[in-house]
Amino acid sequence: MKSKEVRQRIRSGEFQQNTSGACDEFVQANVVILPKEFAFDFFLYAYRNQKACPLIDVLEAGVYESRLAKGSDIRTDIPLYHVYENGKLQEKRADIIDVFQDDYVTFLLGCSFTFESQLLKNGISLRHVESKKNVAMYRTNIATIPAGRFSGPLVVSMRPIANEHVDQAIEITKRFPNMHGAPVHIGDPSEIGIDEIERPDYGEFVDIKDKETPVFWACGVTPQAAAVQANIPYMITHAPGHMFITDWTNDDFVS
Amino acid sequence: MKSKEVRQRIRSGEFQQNTSGACDEFVQANVVILPKEFAFDFFLYAYRNQKACPLIDVLEAGVYESRLAKGSDIRTDIPLYHVYENGKLQEKRADIIDVFQDDYVTFLLGCSFTFESQLLKNGISLRHVESKKNVAMYRTNIATIPAGRFSGPLVVSMRPIANEHVDQAIEITKRFPNMHGAPVHIGDPSEIGIDEIERPDYGEFVDIKDKETPVFWACGVTPQAAAVQANIPYMITHAPGHMFITDWTNDDFVS
Repeated sequence: MKSKEVRQRIRSGEFQQNTSGACDEFVQANVVILPKEFAFDFFLYAYRNQKACPLIDVLEAGVYESRLAKGSDIRTDIPLYHVYENGKLQEKRADIIDVFQDDYVTFLLGCSFTFESQLLKNGISLRHVESKKNVAMYRTNIATIPAGRFSGPLVVSMRPIANEHVDQAIEITKRFPNMHGAPVHIGDPSEIGIDEIERPDYGEFVDIKDKETPVFWACGVTPQAAAVQANIPYMITHAPGHMFITDWTNDDFVS
Repeated sequence: MKSKEVRQRIRSGEFQQNTSGACDEFVQANVVILPKEFAFDFFLYAYRNQKACPLIDVLEAGVYESRLAKGSDIRTDIPLYHVYENGKLQEKRADIIDVFQDDYVTFLLGCSFTFESQLLKNGISLRHVESKKNVAMYRTNIATIPAGRFSGPLVVSMRPIANEHVDQAIEITKRFPNMHGAPVHIGDPSEIGIDEIERPDYGEFVDIKDKETPVFWACGVTPQAAAVQANIPYMITHAPGHMFITDWTNDDFVS
């Protein structure tokens, strides 16, 4: 299916599940929507922490069509939205038509689905995909660079990779600097402050088997976590795994 | 001289001229300072027009030390400032201590001095440097991507390059994507809407001789021109050629 068709099905309510594996060749995006009052600081936070927060589009206040997807509507084209008030998840919604305001600014950030599809194409298996789980994510002891009221730890996603494929996985993901790029850590989780690998902070744990290495990539949950911690009065995000699908292909973003 | 020493001499008032050729190996920056109210839109404008507006640092509201220059003070470390009110140049100042406010946001943008020093090192002569002129700059018919109230034409700088050196000049400047990168146009000025090459919109004309080609690069005056056109109530910039000198070397920014 083409990206436009999937967005249309999401908009009509026909497609409600997560978007992992939907429209494999098209770039999917993390979404953060904030009142303009906080938009400069959030922009600065993303700019300073590009590995975790790779901006691929920023919409002006009140605008809901992305340049990366002609005819799109950010208020309807995501399968599930999370609404936060004062840093707390307050509501899950299928659209945000009623709550979107003229002063809301939308940020689209690159997402690991792009590099995952490239890993799979190259014969590198991903256990969370095979077992249809959400990837395991962890808060680390690596601090991001603060900006205004936004700060917090780098959040990483972990994928067990067969030892003989680790080098290749690095090479492949390095080619996607706008989708988190090369891993930030390889091997011993405790070195980045992860004490219990079996208990991820977000998503679901998958086993790390013999002759596999846990490989950690910067994760798009980082800016969401910073925004929650910043305790701003109102924020809307996509629900984890329920991404915004653009018309750009993965190849458009290869460096 | 080291960058820190030059900044110290600028701060003390000892160094008042333009910074072309001062501290050759250190990166110099264009500077735009705006009230926070306009900072998000300006940030977005720069983000959307990276070739003309390559951001190398953005300071939070009220902050005057850049991460690129430890101990620096953006209020004193530039030889000459321009103060604009409602889009009009109102005042030239040697420092901005008295006028800098808590809500002012500072943007530093890459500058062509970096690639010029690399061209010279490689034996490519630059007439405006030899004749100690400010480089010739032109408004083109290429529109930038608007953002909020910021819009306007791409401004380019022109350097006559010996025909046999044009390819090499492209290769060298391409390596500095944060300092405008490769040329945006080579040859016939009328193709980008420049009708009178002898009459630049900013800077000074230098002759284009036989066996030379005019080569055009995106120019850091672009965002200043957009900000002037946006008619915002208050803005401070460096005076042309009077740059902010960072502690980063040109090599730190080679891609």
